[in-house]
Amino acid sequence: MKLYWTRGTCVLAVLIALEDAGASYDSYHVAFKDREQRGAAFLKLNPKGRVPALETDRGILTEVPAILAYIAQTYPDADLAPLDDAFAMGEIHAFNAYLCATVHVAHAHRVRGERWADETSSHEDMQRKVPETMAACFDLIEKEMLRGPWVMGDRYTICDGYLFTICQWLEGDSVDIARFPKIEAHAKRMAARPATQKAVTFWSP
Amino acid sequence: MKLYWTRGTCVLAVLIALEDAGASYDSYHVAFKDREQRGAAFLKLNPKGRVPALETDRGILTEVPAILAYIAQTYPDADLAPLDDAFAMGEIHAFNAYLCATVHVAHAHRVRGERWADETSSHEDMQRKVPETMAACFDLIEKEMLRGPWVMGDRYTICDGYLFTICQWLEGDSVDIARFPKIEAHAKRMAARPATQKAVTFWSP
Repeated sequence: MKLYWTRGTCVLAVLIALEDAGASYDSYHVAFKDREQRGAAFLKLNPKGRVPALETDRGILTEVPAILAYIAQTYPDADLAPLDDAFAMGEIHAFNAYLCATVHVAHAHRVRGERWADETSSHEDMQRKVPETMAACFDLIEKEMLRGPWVMGDRYTICDGYLFTICQWLEGDSVDIARFPKIEAHAKRMAARPATQKAVTFWSP
Repeated sequence: MKLYWTRGTCVLAVLIALEDAGASYDSYHVAFKDREQRGAAFLKLNPKGRVPALETDRGILTEVPAILAYIAQTYPDADLAPLDDAFAMGEIHAFNAYLCATVHVAHAHRVRGERWADETSSHEDMQRKVPETMAACFDLIEKEMLRGPWVMGDRYTICDGYLFTICQWLEGDSVDIARFPKIEAHAKRMAARPATQKAVTFWSP
């Protein structure tokens, strides 16, 4: 396997899961600062022009929730998801879909507003609203989703590294994680794990 | 099972999958026109205030990709996903994550701009850009994702009803599906299936 990744991005969730799984893999750093993700070579590999992309002997996988599910299913001994329990897997997919389609999207309006509007005034409006939308997302996670000690309760899963990853963006989005005591405790619990530490050291800008 | 749903929304993908699975279920129509999805009773059930929400004997599942995966795993005889093939499942999760987190989000900027910005001028800017962003998404699906005859090739999966669902929004988003011949043929193939017809009849406004 070969992971195409970029420092500071949501790829951290994948790096943590690969560490958790004890997977061996190659990696290639895609330089966003040079717009390498929109270059012909990378687009041939991943026409979406985004990271992460995981190259396997069967082809490329994209999208964090999909790659996390793939790692969990490919390394069952790592026990990263309750693979045979359709309802529990549904809860995991739902949590990761919320991070991917609502929380990551809310965050992206701070730095990627040109995806959805053309005017500078619109981009500034979006940027102003990000602290509110991100806080609303994390309020919902704090009150309704995070069971503790791990996202799904007693069992550590592929959801935990993904939540921890998006927490890394809160400060830049002007949201104080201390407003969310359960999430803050979860982030500290994650940060104490050797797999997380190894992934974060590799990933940090 | 009880499905909380609203006419015209992405819930069509779930209705199709439930028909495909031969599942029996109750349903409750959530009246968006009365803002019922933001009312106390519904928020108690689904704090996200969105549909679909599938009530099971184990609890509530939300998010289209998660509910589709749950249906596929709960009704294995319906053969809606290659459950034991981690890579093929990864491709399915990746396709559905793209629809959920990129395509649905692009569409939502036409009618839900208040999620991400406050000014009327920003909402109008977003609305103007939707035909461009939706066309770009469908161009990528046409050229890089849809294998044919079904999304994943010869095998019909939970991806097909979801793509068909989002195609229903193209006309309202001012994108002509005829620009995408493979997707248009897929939509016609889907529309010819009795399960699709039953779901569409139930769902249409």
